[in-house]
Amino acid sequence: MHSDLTNMERAEVLTAALPYIRRYAGKVVVVKYGGNAMINDQLKQQVMEDIVLLWLIGVRIVLVHGGGPEINDLMDRLGKKPEFVDGLRVTDKETMDIVQMVLAGKINKTLVNLLEMKGGKAVGLSGMDGRLLQCSMKDERLGYVGEIQKVHIQPVTDLLDRGYIPVVSTVGCDKNGNAYNINGDTTAAYIAGALGAERLIMMTDIAGVLKDKNDPSTLIPQITLPELPSLYDSGIISGGMIPKVECCAKALSRGVRNVVIMDGRVPHSILMELLTDEGAGTMVSNGETPDDRQSGWE
Amino acid sequence: MHSDLTNMERAEVLTAALPYIRRYAGKVVVVKYGGNAMINDQLKQQVMEDIVLLWLIGVRIVLVHGGGPEINDLMDRLGKKPEFVDGLRVTDKETMDIVQMVLAGKINKTLVNLLEMKGGKAVGLSGMDGRLLQCSMKDERLGYVGEIQKVHIQPVTDLLDRGYIPVVSTVGCDKNGNAYNINGDTTAAYIAGALGAERLIMMTDIAGVLKDKNDPSTLIPQITLPELPSLYDSGIISGGMIPKVECCAKALSRGVRNVVIMDGRVPHSILMELLTDEGAGTMVSNGETPDDRQSGWE
Amino acid sequence: MHSDLTNMERAEVLTAALPYIRRYAGKVVVVKYGGNAMINDQLKQQVMEDIVLLWLIGVRIVLVHGGGPEINDLMDRLGKKPEFVDGLRVTDKETMDIVQMVLAGKINKTLVNLLEMKGGKAVGLSGMDGRLLQCSMKDERLGYVGEIQKVHIQPVTDLLDRGYIPVVSTVGCDKNGNAYNINGDTTAAYIAGALGAERLIMMTDIAGVLKDKNDPSTLIPQITLPELPSLYDSGIISGGMIPKVECCAKALSRGVRNVVIMDGRVPHSILMELLTDEGAGTMVSNGETPDDRQSGWE
Amino acid sequence: MHSDLTNMERAEVLTAALPYIRRYAGKVVVVKYGGNAMINDQLKQQVMEDIVLLWLIGVRIVLVHGGGPEINDLMDRLGKKPEFVDGLRVTDKETMDIVQMVLAGKINKTLVNLLEMKGGKAVGLSGMDGRLLQCSMKDERLGYVGEIQKVHIQPVTDLLDRGYIPVVSTVGCDKNGNAYNINGDTTAAYIAGALGAERLIMMTDIAGVLKDKNDPSTLIPQITLPELPSLYDSGIISGGMIPKVECCAKALSRGVRNVVIMDGRVPHSILMELLTDEGAGTMVSNGETPDDRQSGWE
Amino acid sequence: MHSDLTNMERAEVLTAALPYIRRYAGKVVVVKYGGNAMINDQLKQQVMEDIVLLWLIGVRIVLVHGGGPEINDLMDRLGKKPEFVDGLRVTDKETMDIVQMVLAGKINKTLVNLLEMKGGKAVGLSGMDGRLLQCSMKDERLGYVGEIQKVHIQPVTDLLDRGYIPVVSTVGCDKNGNAYNINGDTTAAYIAGALGAERLIMMTDIAGVLKDKNDPSTLIPQITLPELPSLYDSGIISGGMIPKVECCAKALSRGVRNVVIMDGRVPHSILMELLTDEGAGTMVSNGETPDDRQSGWE
Amino acid sequence: MHSDLTNMERAEVLTAALPYIRRYAGKVVVVKYGGNAMINDQLKQQVMEDIVLLWLIGVRIVLVHGGGPEINDLMDRLGKKPEFVDGLRVTDKETMDIVQMVLAGKINKTLVNLLEMKGGKAVGLSGMDGRLLQCSMKDERLGYVGEIQKVHIQPVTDLLDRGYIPVVSTVGCDKNGNAYNINGDTTAAYIAGALGAERLIMMTDIAGVLKDKNDPSTLIPQITLPELPSLYDSGIISGGMIPKVECCAKALSRGVRNVVIMDGRVPHSILMELLTDEGAGTMVSNGETPDDRQSGWE
Repeated sequence: MHSDLTNMERAEVLTAALPYIRRYAGKVVVVKYGGNAMINDQLKQQVMEDIVLLWLIGVRIVLVHGGGPEINDLMDRLGKKPEFVDGLRVTDKETMDIVQMVLAGKINKTLVNLLEMKGGKAVGLSGMDGRLLQCSMKDERLGYVGEIQKVHIQPVTDLLDRGYIPVVSTVGCDKNGNAYNINGDTTAAYIAGALGAERLIMMTDIAGVLKDKNDPSTLIPQITLPELPSLYDSGIISGGMIPKVECCAKALSRGVRNVVIMDGRVPHSILMELLTDEGAGTMVSNGETPDDRQSGWE
Repeated sequence: MHSDLTNMERAEVLTAALPYIRRYAGKVVVVKYGGNAMINDQLKQQVMEDIVLLWLIGVRIVLVHGGGPEINDLMDRLGKKPEFVDGLRVTDKETMDIVQMVLAGKINKTLVNLLEMKGGKAVGLSGMDGRLLQCSMKDERLGYVGEIQKVHIQPVTDLLDRGYIPVVSTVGCDKNGNAYNINGDTTAAYIAGALGAERLIMMTDIAGVLKDKNDPSTLIPQITLPELPSLYDSGIISGGMIPKVECCAKALSRGVRNVVIMDGRVPHSILMELLTDEGAGTMVSNGETPDDRQSGWE
Repeated sequence: MHSDLTNMERAEVLTAALPYIRRYAGKVVVVKYGGNAMINDQLKQQVMEDIVLLWLIGVRIVLVHGGGPEINDLMDRLGKKPEFVDGLRVTDKETMDIVQMVLAGKINKTLVNLLEMKGGKAVGLSGMDGRLLQCSMKDERLGYVGEIQKVHIQPVTDLLDRGYIPVVSTVGCDKNGNAYNINGDTTAAYIAGALGAERLIMMTDIAGVLKDKNDPSTLIPQITLPELPSLYDSGIISGGMIPKVECCAKALSRGVRNVVIMDGRVPHSILMELLTDEGAGTMVSNGETPDDRQSGWE
Repeated sequence: MHSDLTNMERAEVLTAALPYIRRYAGKVVVVKYGGNAMINDQLKQQVMEDIVLLWLIGVRIVLVHGGGPEINDLMDRLGKKPEFVDGLRVTDKETMDIVQMVLAGKINKTLVNLLEMKGGKAVGLSGMDGRLLQCSMKDERLGYVGEIQKVHIQPVTDLLDRGYIPVVSTVGCDKNGNAYNINGDTTAAYIAGALGAERLIMMTDIAGVLKDKNDPSTLIPQITLPELPSLYDSGIISGGMIPKVECCAKALSRGVRNVVIMDGRVPHSILMELLTDEGAGTMVSNGETPDDRQSGWE
Repeated sequence: MHSDLTNMERAEVLTAALPYIRRYAGKVVVVKYGGNAMINDQLKQQVMEDIVLLWLIGVRIVLVHGGGPEINDLMDRLGKKPEFVDGLRVTDKETMDIVQMVLAGKINKTLVNLLEMKGGKAVGLSGMDGRLLQCSMKDERLGYVGEIQKVHIQPVTDLLDRGYIPVVSTVGCDKNGNAYNINGDTTAAYIAGALGAERLIMMTDIAGVLKDKNDPSTLIPQITLPELPSLYDSGIISGGMIPKVECCAKALSRGVRNVVIMDGRVPHSILMELLTDEGAGTMVSNGETPDDRQSGWE
Repeated sequence: MHSDLTNMERAEVLTAALPYIRRYAGKVVVVKYGGNAMINDQLKQQVMEDIVLLWLIGVRIVLVHGGGPEINDLMDRLGKKPEFVDGLRVTDKETMDIVQMVLAGKINKTLVNLLEMKGGKAVGLSGMDGRLLQCSMKDERLGYVGEIQKVHIQPVTDLLDRGYIPVVSTVGCDKNGNAYNINGDTTAAYIAGALGAERLIMMTDIAGVLKDKNDPSTLIPQITLPELPSLYDSGIISGGMIPKVECCAKALSRGVRNVVIMDGRVPHSILMELLTDEGAGTMVSNGETPDDRQSGWE
């Protein structure tokens, strides 16, 4: 903390946040949490602080998390060798058990715990709770890798209505009671869509969409859907950014107002995105109203 | 299923359950689930059917579960050797991680999933969610074994009010964010007390309190609190039954109407306890109104 | 009661009813009560038990009743001779008084009383209460025989919302305050329509629609609206069955999901219809989704 | 209607009623309807108008009615001879049937109908509906004459909350489902007590409590409970007035604010009592606050 | 008050109002208060009585007031000379301050106070409160004379829902926080439109629309929109009546059911308009359903 | 604004405010606004920003304001000479008119307007609205100077419940409809008491209670009620500070948790008081729990 700031300077910062607070109060924001921000402990603490602050100022916030390296860790320790089909990892029943334990048992509850420690009220959900994430098998050869068939969003809205921060782990289930591992970005897009979220924030380990992948100063701050084809063609969107951007498009098509691909390595990036003018990372929107502010004056 | 029963016989059975349904509709019943009923798959299916049936007829039902042998299993597989202090097992940080994953990740979500498969609406909670079970360390030498300090029952009542079956795993947390393993029976007693439950059902692997431990026909169907001292003195309540009965007493003192120690090995024992005259197992009550029926006629 | 059934067999019967309970919980079912089931005292007791059971498991149930032989009884005792016009009975002012007293005073309140005795919460309504059934005169020569002009369903939904079983007697009124006798089946069809009922059950003294009127084994279990013309042509639907089936069609056209013509002489026929697979009697439906089950899995 | 009143005079009358309207809006007023006001058709029409007017200006009004001469009429026509024990009439099962039909079927529904015709929303109840009036037998020799054991007021408050005028007929029931004839004044006192009514109005065929029974100008406008003994002693309260005044005392002891014994033979007496300064008849009160007006200014 | 009216005559007047009360209960009525009725103290008292009476019988009533001569008074006393541009008065900043003080401070609060004295519950609003009346400048040369851009009706409905009589002064504001003077009739039309009012009553100092301006007996009781052109052509609607009638048309086009131009000089004219058959003044309506009564009987 | 602060520094300031936001969310804070903060335009803007920020983060905030020099201004301009009795100013009818216009018309609406401009939702109230502040005359010789008899807090809580910032001007009324000028500090104390406020903030033009009136560095940060007598005796509390401290004591005795006498000349003093550790000015409390923080951890 900058102890050299006077209280008055602090007060000025707070009042400067006023128009942004006004804009997001009562709105739904979904945060896909992952990458470095999940591994680095200081970043993790800051993300949790940001989430609780947003919750306190009235944002209806939902946290969606995947698993990170902890799944591999436990598999390793259990002497479980990853299998591959066409270069894709296979999730057999035993691996799925491990995934479920790590996601729904360890990470989910640890995040809930952190949010509570920061002063929030949180409840963790898996895709089994209230049958939130109904899946089918994506590809028989890959085993229990799930494709979302339907989102029963009720448990999430029930918790939001009762004033909690829902924390969702990306474990789904099918009609026969089998558990599935689901892609985190896709889950976040579906949940944000089902909630008609104001914003979906995808935390990644890159500054956003860059013209030159090696030069963060070439960040493209705003992309609209109609611009996507040319960005694909020019190779600006390529590699791991392709599925990420596709998730953004999916979320927009399901009713999310706009999506931001954001650098989770930057401290307090969520707050900066939502509560300052510059924002952070690359915002993807339908192209109609890329950055309008909702004003009472019409 | 007895296919030789006619539909009319079935109808008669249903209408015979009417007075019991009337009695429990809208009331809170907490089930401490454990023992054989949790290991044997057929029994498990039947318990879930019973829970969903009770939920459908309007009982506000809460399921509290511990871990059973699955914790030991995972510890074994991870090459983790149990340590002991004065004959009591030590729960170090690493063991606690395993406990949390198994209880809150594996068992809790599997039970939620089963209840959903049977047609119920369920959401799983740990003691971290909404800070449900606030603990402190019981004994420094035993590590992360928790003693309940406070129950923040709100998340459970929020879920009941929204029509869910809350499923609670016995993992708690302290003010510093540490996770703790908590005794299942105690947790159930505290939760039932905080809810002012009509009944707490403790599933065990014994028929109930027996005059002669080796003869199930010597079951004592009803015990009142004032009778406890002589039952302790005579050795009828001894060994593992002592902490169980103490939990019953604790629940009663916290406002639970009555508690039943029930044989979980008997199929559909919960339904039989609640929906027939004979009941099942041993009921422990304050002694004032051991078995009154609530009647609209006064 | 089959005292030779064990408690476990009872429990199995109860859990076997689970999917049906799930299906009807929260749905509106209208029962047109009449015929033998209203005269035979044991049947009457069983119908009331069935109604209360359905109410307890969360069905929003409405009972519509006509008068049966008790009207004739009282007319006889008052030395009132029935008059006829073209073979149809005339309801003069004095007869209408008798009808009103028997239906709204005697039968309605006796049924309410029985439902309360079985543990239900019931309130009786006539078509005057809240102006539920607004009528006009059908045929001047027949006197106070009413044709329903409008159903003000509010009093029924008010009672359902407050948790009561509404019991409706088939007495209507017109704009000038005159009372009318109304056909019971028609009333039930209008009320079920106004409520958008899941099911209308018409209790009769016949097994259902039979291919051979004299052979109950020739029961047609399901009829769809498009099949009706050929059934009329072939004479399978004839005589007293014609107005009954027309009522079914009217109910379906007003938004009822399906209608069952059921044998009220069979004990617990309502429970068997709703809570077993075989059902009872003849179900009439639009033909689109004759017997779909509502499932949470989609 | 006085056609010679100008509209402005009418407006002045309306505004003069303003303080009284203010006083009773939202308050519960129970009217025991009986005597001449029930027999004379013009008076009946005026009472119904008064009730609907009070309902429209926000009074929560409940109408309790007995039977009047119509019971005797029907008994006569059925050739039923009244039996007596010690000078008191016996109500055998058959007589009770007649009472129930006339009260709950004929009079109750006719009053409901009239209120609806005048623009009110009314629903009729008997003591069986929602088990409103639970009775026991008063004296075995008198048969089905009931003594109120308990009032389950819920159906009345449910109807008031939903905006209806509840109309209650004085038929009760016991635990075994038997119907009983109950005294009207007592019923009104119990119902007003259970509702904590602001006022109970007892309509009779006398001007009120008179110093000289034969001289209406000797009306005592206000009596307090402490004054009763001397009024009994002096014979001013005697004969049929005794049970009436006892009912008033019972109502006051059960929480009714005050009771008025009112001359039902005077047109619009209810309106005059509630909406003018002079009131009508004799008001009986606890003596603490005989005639306070509730004012917002304190 | 006509002390020579008997209580019974009073009661008859009250019951005669019954059908009108029935018609307006729960409906929104907006009264534009102005002219003589605002200057003459006795008339003012009577208007307040009428408003409170309507409020007590369940009308959702809103009072809109302008300023009358009090603004000029204060300007005079402050030595402020009115300026004119093309014959229209200019509202400079200083004048606007005076307008605001007189309208929102003096008149508004005095009316609220009067309504409270008569037993109503009232809260005063200006166009600034909850940004009720959002304006822009009409004509730069006229200064702070506002044209309504948008009505944020929420504060008015919030107050109505909480049971208050909203009293609105015709002061608006623009996006930059400037205050504006707005025309009273227009404000009333906009507010009535935003509320979908059942009726807008415009109080004026003329009997209504007259065929012969000098002969009140030539009052036209009803006008429909299609008739307006010919009335303009014939000169029957001319002078100050033109903007008034245009306001009526604007209100109707915004969803008000009908509008009445009423003589505020007649005592209790509001009550007479709403609670008697003859009504008062000239009613302007769309022409479709000029004078239908809403009846429960259909 | 310190443009040299990075976004990250801003984010850190925001998260540092988190525990304070948590503490006050949902709590009632009453601000008595006056002195320099009301005259200096920049301070005024900052106070309004602070109020709106607190409102946005969930504080239920109420603003109470007096009149300041604007009343004298208008009196001057109207040539109205102040009269005195024993050195106290007399408020005659004409003066009261001026007070009402300035407070309820000019200042109140201007503050409401400012809050709306900053993004808040505000509604202004006088003591007449909903009869909020019921007064009597304090001293006949002083004229319309009011003493609060009763606070009808409903209009304030109604507005808070509907999400508005209530802005209250210190004009009261008596039973006869007379308006009164009331002391601002007293009004704030009564309103805070009626709301059971968490905190009452009294803005003044002094740093707080000072040991040496001329040395702001001698500020006493906390005073408890038991310490008051010695502070009076020692002359530390003297002159204009006496009535202020008496108001604090009055507020505390009426249920306010604590009161702060704060220097309104310091920019953003309200935010600093509520959202930083140091607070601002002198806090007066009961002495039991001078500065406890409400924590979820118990």
